[in-house]
Amino acid sequence: MGKKVTIRDIASMAGVSVTTVSQVLNGKGKRFSKSTREKILKLRDQYQYVPDFHARSLIMKENINTIGVLVPNVSEPFFGTFVEGVQQVAREEKLIPLIFSANRDPKLEKEYLEQMVERSIDGLIIASARMTTEMINQALIRRDIPYILFDRNYDQEGARVQTDDYHGGQLAAKHLVDLGHQKFLFLGVNNITENFKQRLAGFKDVLEENGRQFDEDKDVLRTDLSRLGGYHAAKAVAQSGATAVFTANDDVAMGLLRGLRELNIRVPEDISVIGYDDIALDEYVYPRLTTIHQPIFDLGIGATKILLDRINNNNDHEKVEKFPVRLVKRESTAPYHMV
Amino acid sequence: MGKKVTIRDIASMAGVSVTTVSQVLNGKGKRFSKSTREKILKLRDQYQYVPDFHARSLIMKENINTIGVLVPNVSEPFFGTFVEGVQQVAREEKLIPLIFSANRDPKLEKEYLEQMVERSIDGLIIASARMTTEMINQALIRRDIPYILFDRNYDQEGARVQTDDYHGGQLAAKHLVDLGHQKFLFLGVNNITENFKQRLAGFKDVLEENGRQFDEDKDVLRTDLSRLGGYHAAKAVAQSGATAVFTANDDVAMGLLRGLRELNIRVPEDISVIGYDDIALDEYVYPRLTTIHQPIFDLGIGATKILLDRINNNNDHEKVEKFPVRLVKRESTAPYHMV
Repeated sequence: MGKKVTIRDIASMAGVSVTTVSQVLNGKGKRFSKSTREKILKLRDQYQYVPDFHARSLIMKENINTIGVLVPNVSEPFFGTFVEGVQQVAREEKLIPLIFSANRDPKLEKEYLEQMVERSIDGLIIASARMTTEMINQALIRRDIPYILFDRNYDQEGARVQTDDYHGGQLAAKHLVDLGHQKFLFLGVNNITENFKQRLAGFKDVLEENGRQFDEDKDVLRTDLSRLGGYHAAKAVAQSGATAVFTANDDVAMGLLRGLRELNIRVPEDISVIGYDDIALDEYVYPRLTTIHQPIFDLGIGATKILLDRINNNNDHEKVEKFPVRLVKRESTAPYHMV
Repeated sequence: MGKKVTIRDIASMAGVSVTTVSQVLNGKGKRFSKSTREKILKLRDQYQYVPDFHARSLIMKENINTIGVLVPNVSEPFFGTFVEGVQQVAREEKLIPLIFSANRDPKLEKEYLEQMVERSIDGLIIASARMTTEMINQALIRRDIPYILFDRNYDQEGARVQTDDYHGGQLAAKHLVDLGHQKFLFLGVNNITENFKQRLAGFKDVLEENGRQFDEDKDVLRTDLSRLGGYHAAKAVAQSGATAVFTANDDVAMGLLRGLRELNIRVPEDISVIGYDDIALDEYVYPRLTTIHQPIFDLGIGATKILLDRINNNNDHEKVEKFPVRLVKRESTAPYHMV
């Protein structure tokens, strides 16, 4: 048969991406290690590889980049919307986004990353609050794959997109203080990651600046980061005596609304509830949910554009793009003592 | 350097999956075409490929199958739950599921499929109401990749998982007839696919069997298959005079609930609403949504298990697994004339 060796074969044998081979063979491989460059050039000579610019399908395939998108759970509305942002850029820029979701299990996340590398992925967007830069680099070991963090860890290096969780917590507290509330609760999560710590810190600081008491031991409840988690916390929330509750995210808030309704506790007349994220569902629950808006869709777009820049232009400076948060007032919060 | 040729290189050069090469070289390749088998054996000889059973990492990689999962839109709760079912089996069976979502664009779906093939995927689960078997086979042309349809087209061949949409429509009609309703509406979708046609047919047949009038020209409204679609249809629904509405799916029903609330129309006192799917959110809207349950999570599990069977055991008979639907009564439906 004597099938001609393709750029994909060279990439596979060298253990690098097609993009890497293409860039090295086109003299644009400065950012890659000397040993990577030499390996590729040697394989080219060994297999007498010649780029075939007339084979249209081959050229097409070279121009299509495939990116991996690691999210904790694709069935959470937050990450669903993030992925939609990624997909919008993907359609415009002829990228193929492959989504993988490892249920917040760092071991599984690492295994999935390694497999993505095996599949000659051209770049990665990693949204994980658990994986450290070290774990990621270990998974990508010896492969030169650009990646972007959707950073929820704060202590990482590398290109990333971020929102200001501390400021989000401040905004929530300010809104509830402005409404005249005196007794507050933070409905947090069992496995608290840095982004939630930041929100709590911002929340607490503004309460204290305004002369409100907030005791982290007594005024923070923990539950699962899910609708069911919020639902199961309803009784404890009701018993706390708080009239204003700041939840870890909108999913938790939605569950809390359901649980309070079943206990015949009125929102917002008896208890004000404020969520976090501004997922599309907030408009469809009753009462419509007041929340802190994160530009989730834009985060997906932003992360993808930065990644594309790294893939196409070998741009590897440590870009950090920050996205603003803001308060969205709807119907689940009301002045204290409203009848 | 003289890097040793791996099974992955052979697969890449032969244009088949690693699993195919492994099976052919292990004498289990009967289901593959003669030309595929010969191509692989020739490459083995040409590159003097010898399986290296001592290289642990290599063996591990051979044992990990990667499957592609094509869904219309991963941010729809229905497909989010379907994917969760896939992921559960994946974790148990050491499969890596790569999810891709092409926004109901058949051209994009075909392109994504082709790229999955390029990435040496071992199997595919295809949930698309738009792609025909012919389009799929075209995309997978000359590659021997097992796939399973999450069949919403009815007219296809090949292994698939199915639910009975006609029966679902019957159940919805029976429930509303039992409640004494006289005037009905089907809130359908603009681009009606076979699964919706079946639901409508079952709905209509039971109404007529029970002496109720139902005119497909007047009693079917069309909107987008989304929460926003249901929301925008609320005014037309209110003006129709119907007291019982069967919606295309739960997302549409959720939008309708919001829209009717804004028009001060009470559900279920003024209008009964029944959805379709039984997504987890149904418990969190107000009133809690009566619906037709589809075993979405189980469909994901079932599709993955059948696919795995095809990958591992070369089992390619035309298995069709049917999953039951059932009525789930909640709070959005009530007897006609209830005050």
